[in-house]
Amino acid sequence: MRVILTVLCFLSYYFCCCFPAAVAVKSAQYHSHSHSHSRPHSYLKAVNVWPKPIKLQWPQPKVTSLSADFTIKGPRNHQHLVAAMDRYLGVIRSEHHMPLVNPDVTISNSNPLEVLLIKVDDLTAILQHGVDESYNLTIHDVTSKAVLSAKTAWGAMRGLETFSQLVWVGGGREQLLIPVGLDIWDSPMFAHRGLMLDTSRNYYGVEDILRTISAMSWNKLNVFHWHITDSHSFPLLLPSDPNLAVRGSYGPFMQYTPADVVRIVRFGLDHGVRVIPEIDSPAHTGSWAGAHPEIVTCAGMFWWPAESEWANRLASEPGSGQLNPLHPKTYQVMKKLIKDLVSLFPDPFYHSGGDEVIPGCWTTDPDIQTFLANYNSTHNETTTNGLSRLLEIFVNSTLPYITSYNKTSIYWEDVLLDSTIRVEDSSVLPPEHTILQTWNGGPLNTKRIVSSGYRVIVSSSDYYYLDCGHGSFPGNDSQYNQPPGTDQGNGGSWCGPFKTWQLIYNYDITYGLTEKEKRLVLGGEVALWSEQADSTVLDSRLWPRASALAESLWSGNRDDSGKKRYAEATDRLNEWRYRMVSRGVRAEPIQPLWCVRNPGMCNTLHASG
Amino acid sequence: MRVILTVLCFLSYYFCCCFPAAVAVKSAQYHSHSHSHSRPHSYLKAVNVWPKPIKLQWPQPKVTSLSADFTIKGPRNHQHLVAAMDRYLGVIRSEHHMPLVNPDVTISNSNPLEVLLIKVDDLTAILQHGVDESYNLTIHDVTSKAVLSAKTAWGAMRGLETFSQLVWVGGGREQLLIPVGLDIWDSPMFAHRGLMLDTSRNYYGVEDILRTISAMSWNKLNVFHWHITDSHSFPLLLPSDPNLAVRGSYGPFMQYTPADVVRIVRFGLDHGVRVIPEIDSPAHTGSWAGAHPEIVTCAGMFWWPAESEWANRLASEPGSGQLNPLHPKTYQVMKKLIKDLVSLFPDPFYHSGGDEVIPGCWTTDPDIQTFLANYNSTHNETTTNGLSRLLEIFVNSTLPYITSYNKTSIYWEDVLLDSTIRVEDSSVLPPEHTILQTWNGGPLNTKRIVSSGYRVIVSSSDYYYLDCGHGSFPGNDSQYNQPPGTDQGNGGSWCGPFKTWQLIYNYDITYGLTEKEKRLVLGGEVALWSEQADSTVLDSRLWPRASALAESLWSGNRDDSGKKRYAEATDRLNEWRYRMVSRGVRAEPIQPLWCVRNPGMCNTLHASG
Repeated sequence: MRVILTVLCFLSYYFCCCFPAAVAVKSAQYHSHSHSHSRPHSYLKAVNVWPKPIKLQWPQPKVTSLSADFTIKGPRNHQHLVAAMDRYLGVIRSEHHMPLVNPDVTISNSNPLEVLLIKVDDLTAILQHGVDESYNLTIHDVTSKAVLSAKTAWGAMRGLETFSQLVWVGGGREQLLIPVGLDIWDSPMFAHRGLMLDTSRNYYGVEDILRTISAMSWNKLNVFHWHITDSHSFPLLLPSDPNLAVRGSYGPFMQYTPADVVRIVRFGLDHGVRVIPEIDSPAHTGSWAGAHPEIVTCAGMFWWPAESEWANRLASEPGSGQLNPLHPKTYQVMKKLIKDLVSLFPDPFYHSGGDEVIPGCWTTDPDIQTFLANYNSTHNETTTNGLSRLLEIFVNSTLPYITSYNKTSIYWEDVLLDSTIRVEDSSVLPPEHTILQTWNGGPLNTKRIVSSGYRVIVSSSDYYYLDCGHGSFPGNDSQYNQPPGTDQGNGGSWCGPFKTWQLIYNYDITYGLTEKEKRLVLGGEVALWSEQADSTVLDSRLWPRASALAESLWSGNRDDSGKKRYAEATDRLNEWRYRMVSRGVRAEPIQPLWCVRNPGMCNTLHASG
Repeated sequence: MRVILTVLCFLSYYFCCCFPAAVAVKSAQYHSHSHSHSRPHSYLKAVNVWPKPIKLQWPQPKVTSLSADFTIKGPRNHQHLVAAMDRYLGVIRSEHHMPLVNPDVTISNSNPLEVLLIKVDDLTAILQHGVDESYNLTIHDVTSKAVLSAKTAWGAMRGLETFSQLVWVGGGREQLLIPVGLDIWDSPMFAHRGLMLDTSRNYYGVEDILRTISAMSWNKLNVFHWHITDSHSFPLLLPSDPNLAVRGSYGPFMQYTPADVVRIVRFGLDHGVRVIPEIDSPAHTGSWAGAHPEIVTCAGMFWWPAESEWANRLASEPGSGQLNPLHPKTYQVMKKLIKDLVSLFPDPFYHSGGDEVIPGCWTTDPDIQTFLANYNSTHNETTTNGLSRLLEIFVNSTLPYITSYNKTSIYWEDVLLDSTIRVEDSSVLPPEHTILQTWNGGPLNTKRIVSSGYRVIVSSSDYYYLDCGHGSFPGNDSQYNQPPGTDQGNGGSWCGPFKTWQLIYNYDITYGLTEKEKRLVLGGEVALWSEQADSTVLDSRLWPRASALAESLWSGNRDDSGKKRYAEATDRLNEWRYRMVSRGVRAEPIQPLWCVRNPGMCNTLHASG
């Protein structure tokens, strides 16, 4: 009986640990004889680049050391590439990364690696959507010649990041090791790989933003979508209209000056990260009322009066205020603002917001009431369509102005898909000048957008909203005062539950689309709304969950056989999380450290319902 | 129509803002004529002590300034009180707290406040459960004489903390202001107000622990329940058995030396915080197998083999291992450990763990199998009771030893309440020497415990587990790979959803108990399990949610009329959160800053289901 039990236990242990990691551990003894193509080898874990490159060949576990004189040589006539090369040289020489699990490699006879040579085909290519970010990195055996070639400076930056992740401390702390006989070809699956940060609900200092952009570049994320303003605060000090920030920000020390913006944009370029500003409008503009009270309807009014139904609220959350599309001054303000924005932010994309326009806020305004009454009498239609007409007026009065600056406008999906207030006349939203960002309805709304011919950026709140699962922030909330035993539901978070890295990683943003429709999917963004976030939690809210999106959109979430690879990704993400912490970003842990040290032992083998 | 709408809007605004804050704002003009007893006054918001004192009288909004020579005078023959007085003098003189909302007060003719005089009745009272923590703080008008009197040094520390929170910067940054004509009497409703930290699943440096204890003292929390070890790591370097940490810790730089413990215990005493160690056993001991492989059953085995049902798992989460109650060496190891622990930790309470003893782990052991087979044949009972007998053997072989050191043992509720393995012979768990800590079943399990005559510490996972709502940590979890549209449930967290501060605040730990039973409720603890937490998130996971428990257990969660006061607590907690951040703890924000600046506007007036 004992023998049977022991054998059974052994078999179950062996079977249960039958994952690449454990198999690799068991096959470690064969690594010098095996081929890299058929079975994963434990030594391959020495190369832990996140996101995982598309194609990586390293047939033998050989490494060499970095020469004490290691340097990077490349084009010196591209301001941002030079900044990147200089930065990475510093990182590579000083990071001294110590992997959590010591890689099982052979220090080869190869020469010490003296130089990384960078070649770029086209140094004139600007950083914009769709720019070529591919690169080829080869580190030759024996000669240790290392060449990074890319079509553009931005691809070179991706390759530099990869190179920096190949280096680790070994053989006594004085040696920096790097694989040789290594060949990487890499290129992103999706061109738009972003992160949205709301700096209006709560303020973040410039250093927080810069640190975030740094971390993004480590993860090859390339779009920082800056949701700068909202109803709660207007921190952006506009040259042509400083009063918006003077009256609307949280205070003089919680603003972003033009110099701050210039610094952030340049920092982004140095890191291959585009900065796309969003000045949300016409809703989410309560903070504009300090400077321009006459153009903001329902400003300062309670968001959801006790006597009213949800449909009659003034705002979807505390903090109300929407721009009045009928007031001429609205467009004077908007035009000055747009002009400032396009001069501060060079990216060809410009985010106009457009989410959550609420009827109850507009209908508090007498002129709008008159308009709606007239509209109904002349159109024989319901108030709703009059409201839609107002949105159309707003978009029609602002979008062409934006377009005249050769910018492509991004709008939240609401302008097309909202059931109550939306643009009904499609000529107001020409697909060649507009992109929609989806946040509701999962893949369904993605499909609705692309099947209407619009390009889409995917930020489904079912997967990509990083603030979900943290309860709700309004006070006096009686759901938190129920008798014990009451079902707590999703804890008050409208988009709960919390989105784990695995959930984010596994989402296929082109789910259910035809091949033609897929071509309109530009990429995706995780979003951190800041009602319950600020500086103290920024890093841990973002990382490493944004890393999950980063790999999913760079090289996908599947292995070569087409199977989802999130199990294998776990240990890699563990290592990557610790590396980001060493680099100075306070990413949260995803597992006990024990799990990293005992690969496979923290998996579950049972399907969850 | 416009007029009606405007009036309606005004009325709804007024009605909606009909909370103490808004009423106070409107009544500000009457403050010099009103009595403090009938209506709240806005100036009272200038006094923002968290937890709110039991009794506070400040009939007129008068303040004075702190003298440049402000000092604290009190007994100098109590080592820890001296440390506290010196520390608070430094805090008071240098904190320069600036409230978010400028208090509406009058700088009176009172003298500058020169000295806080401290009187203590009994300097010999030791810090233990039930010690008198009451204090009386009076700051006289005109003379500005400030007297803090308390029964014990620990009450004096509570009063010192309160005094420190009464000071703020005003009247130009050079003045420190403090109310005069103020009288506070204060005392905690519950004697045990704690916070549990798991330092085994992930490691925390000593500074993290000290900072946590500091923050606890600001909140008048008085028990640091240190869950030091578990299956994942054994960081405590025991003098008599260092091998446990040498083999079981995450590494030499992730341990706690005896000197570390002495430092932490002393720091606790200087802050009026008891340190109660927990060495969980007999389950949760996988990490002991490095040093003592023979006494740990199922160590290193996969936690839940693919072929088995949940009932046959080896552990409730990845990381298995349980002490073998039949192995004599188990008790040799335990005794040396207990001896070290009682010498390192002076508190009269000692936590023995005892949670989640899993049949499947013990039954992997041949000797246990034999025992169970014999037990069944001689007892005509099921295996279950044989397993319970094993637990009884373990408890019976360890508890008396602990008791012999005059320690009271705390056990998790499982030892009494588990459906499968529990102590069935109540003489093994004498109520006079044991306390139970509840974590399941809400108030129901609390009642089961106290109705059996045991004292209880409440940590219901429905309310007080701070790690809930963050998904689950095992890898390869297919619940995160479901088709879009699949209900995400509670996101994988076994105890989800996330517990907001309001939920924690509102829980009544004596819910449903008789008056007699209530007397056995010692208090409560929030708990941070660290499977997905470590240094980078420690502060934000704990704070300010632990503050919610702190006030709830200190002065309750109701106002004078017996109504839950969480609405009014929101703005106070906002201010308190920012103050904790200034003091150096990275507490998370609970709302947009806009909400603090616009009192009442971020409330909800609709009942949630």
